[in-house]
Amino acid sequence: MADEALFQFLHNELIQYVYKSAEHGEMENGRCITKLENMGFRVGQGLIERFTRDTARFKDELDVMKFVCKDFWTSVFKKQIDNLRTNHQGIYVLQDNKFRFLTQLSTGKQYLEHSPKYLAFACGLVRGGLANLGVKSIVTAEVSVMPACKFQVMIQKM
Amino acid sequence: MADEALFQFLHNELIQYVYKSAEHGEMENGRCITKLENMGFRVGQGLIERFTRDTARFKDELDVMKFVCKDFWTSVFKKQIDNLRTNHQGIYVLQDNKFRFLTQLSTGKQYLEHSPKYLAFACGLVRGGLANLGVKSIVTAEVSVMPACKFQVMIQKM
Repeated sequence: MADEALFQFLHNELIQYVYKSAEHGEMENGRCITKLENMGFRVGQGLIERFTRDTARFKDELDVMKFVCKDFWTSVFKKQIDNLRTNHQGIYVLQDNKFRFLTQLSTGKQYLEHSPKYLAFACGLVRGGLANLGVKSIVTAEVSVMPACKFQVMIQKM
Repeated sequence: MADEALFQFLHNELIQYVYKSAEHGEMENGRCITKLENMGFRVGQGLIERFTRDTARFKDELDVMKFVCKDFWTSVFKKQIDNLRTNHQGIYVLQDNKFRFLTQLSTGKQYLEHSPKYLAFACGLVRGGLANLGVKSIVTAEVSVMPACKFQVMIQKM
């Protein structure tokens, strides 16, 4: 529990810090999101290396995605993805009905506009994890009702 | 394990970020340390509120210090303080022979000069925790041999 709280508080501080340092300079919202996303990316890279140390080789892209939805998600976000869909052409939609980084926020519509801040790091985590498994992607997140969240992973063919 | 890794990676990213954003501006080393320390302070405040929810009232300052050295330390840094000394005039020295935030660093003298970066957040954590228990203090850290660390807590009489 302690480490969970420690991480959550630090995550909140980080968001505040990035946005605050933007105020002084001329950095706009988009760049803050990018900064948080990039930090997530590097953390995701590190995490996936630890998690897959004793894992068998992955068969294909779908196998990698399943690993991310189950093992990676459970380790990092404390539950599995609730629903994984794909169009079999490189787009995956991961639905999490109770996303960890949003559970502390009010469930009303009031803070909906702030959700991107709280999801940028998470998007980076997923992108970084996938990247280190050899899957280059663009990850975006969308919230319609808190604390549910939909992640869209677009695979970048190399 | 996952949350521990998640926190550690994020902590490292944070340090890098604070120092990197300093390069662009005219912020010097001291201010980076202060920023990290302040973030630790607020996180420490949050943590101690959770940890002490079901705790009995503390008798005195020494009782608070003992709680920090045992319960707080175990929750946040995964082990107890190895040695607590005091001059009974408001100065406490907390010795941790294997401090969590330093265990990832090389034990040689090579990175000794970088240790303040990795301890600033921790100092803030302790100061924030104490502050929310009604004990105003100044916390500094000192390393002579990695990964051992000595924290000095100077109580500020009100």
